[in-house]
Amino acid sequence: MASSALPAPEDILAFAADLADAARPLALAYFRTPLDILSKADESPVTVADRTIEAHLRGLIEARFPDHGIFGEEMGVKAGTTPEGGPVWVIDPIDGTKSFVTGLPLFGTLIAFLDGGVPVVGLIDMPALGERWTGLPGQARFGEAPARTSSCRRLAEARFFTTAPEGFTGADAARYQRLVARTALRRYGGDCYAYGLLASGHCDLIAETGLQPYDVMALVPVIRAAGGVITDWNGEDLTLDFDGRVLAAATPDLHAEALAILRG
Amino acid sequence: MASSALPAPEDILAFAADLADAARPLALAYFRTPLDILSKADESPVTVADRTIEAHLRGLIEARFPDHGIFGEEMGVKAGTTPEGGPVWVIDPIDGTKSFVTGLPLFGTLIAFLDGGVPVVGLIDMPALGERWTGLPGQARFGEAPARTSSCRRLAEARFFTTAPEGFTGADAARYQRLVARTALRRYGGDCYAYGLLASGHCDLIAETGLQPYDVMALVPVIRAAGGVITDWNGEDLTLDFDGRVLAAATPDLHAEALAILRG
Repeated sequence: MASSALPAPEDILAFAADLADAARPLALAYFRTPLDILSKADESPVTVADRTIEAHLRGLIEARFPDHGIFGEEMGVKAGTTPEGGPVWVIDPIDGTKSFVTGLPLFGTLIAFLDGGVPVVGLIDMPALGERWTGLPGQARFGEAPARTSSCRRLAEARFFTTAPEGFTGADAARYQRLVARTALRRYGGDCYAYGLLASGHCDLIAETGLQPYDVMALVPVIRAAGGVITDWNGEDLTLDFDGRVLAAATPDLHAEALAILRG
Repeated sequence: MASSALPAPEDILAFAADLADAARPLALAYFRTPLDILSKADESPVTVADRTIEAHLRGLIEARFPDHGIFGEEMGVKAGTTPEGGPVWVIDPIDGTKSFVTGLPLFGTLIAFLDGGVPVVGLIDMPALGERWTGLPGQARFGEAPARTSSCRRLAEARFFTTAPEGFTGADAARYQRLVARTALRRYGGDCYAYGLLASGHCDLIAETGLQPYDVMALVPVIRAAGGVITDWNGEDLTLDFDGRVLAAATPDLHAEALAILRG
């Protein structure tokens, strides 16, 4: 499908915001209540909330844009669509499931809209905090206010986030250790919230591994429009078949310094 | 000073709540604004907010209880008092300074009241979340509601928190690794908030090292009254001269299983 047939990014974002508004009460209805915690193959816990929200959002998208593709964490790719092709919604209903099941309000709902495999619109919603970041080309916002990354250009001054340091193994672990040893401050457990904080200038650098497309696609338009850089560990754009490694930085200089270490 | 001369724990708690109410707007006035981040000997960042809040709370305590001791993170022990002796207030104005300086709303204000070195009243306030846990003998609350730890009795089912896994070194690191390998789920970066979540049944186990008295004294009455167990890594009560190691568990059985590993 040609891009010319698509709604404007502003209209896509307005609909994404409607989706996030619909997801919030569902997430909060399940937050801090006893849940059966199932284990998936990767052993991250997944909740009833996850599936309930994704099913609801998929229904809303199919009603509004019946010809758009959908790729969600829980239910995969919508039949008859390919995420690499035309317009596709990529959804993670509850990012930060470990936060969710331990009562931490740091879980988020991630909604991305891609055209031809490129994330054009992204939204990071934090239901329990009432906070939201949005991004489309040239416009990153935290709520209604503009979001802007920090001016940090050097690792030695960088506030660094990663979700789980034990996630790095083998050569990645050695590179990770070399990287974090040079940063000013380390903080763990951020999930998607760390990328929002990066977009707003509260942290400066994030490196992670083992991520999935639905974990990252919504982050890309936010980080880029806020002035940051987000790529894989080779400095390449994040695509739907990326290798799970992410590096996000407040400035191009900081990104380059970190990339030189992570490339090995 | 004999305990009979002290106000009732309920009155102490009411005053502690007044202190936390006074601290909240001060903390929020500095949160997510540019700050000079100084480095202390332990390299944790400390903020202007930290000092401003402690000075304010010390003034309020001295006005109300001029003969009480005060022991705060920033300004040490009040002249003429000894924290081991009579009534003493132990204060951490901003626990979780790394959270504070990276825009994470997980920092808290900790207020404890000790009699003869024993923490009798504890309060964990989360200014940016508007949440508060309180504890005195027989009564733990989250806001106005009772707080109760989970019924988790086995490491294999335990949701585990620690603030910074790289904080464990030498023999501690090996014991920590043996412990976490047996837990169901690991989560990092909690600071005092993890203990509140433990008191409310959202997580089950916490092990940390390198903590200071002002980091832990406020937690003890909350965890105990909620049904949990909190000790050092030898199973001893936390005193003002404890060695920095803390183990907190939702149930005595879970505490015993974890303690057997941490004792080595």
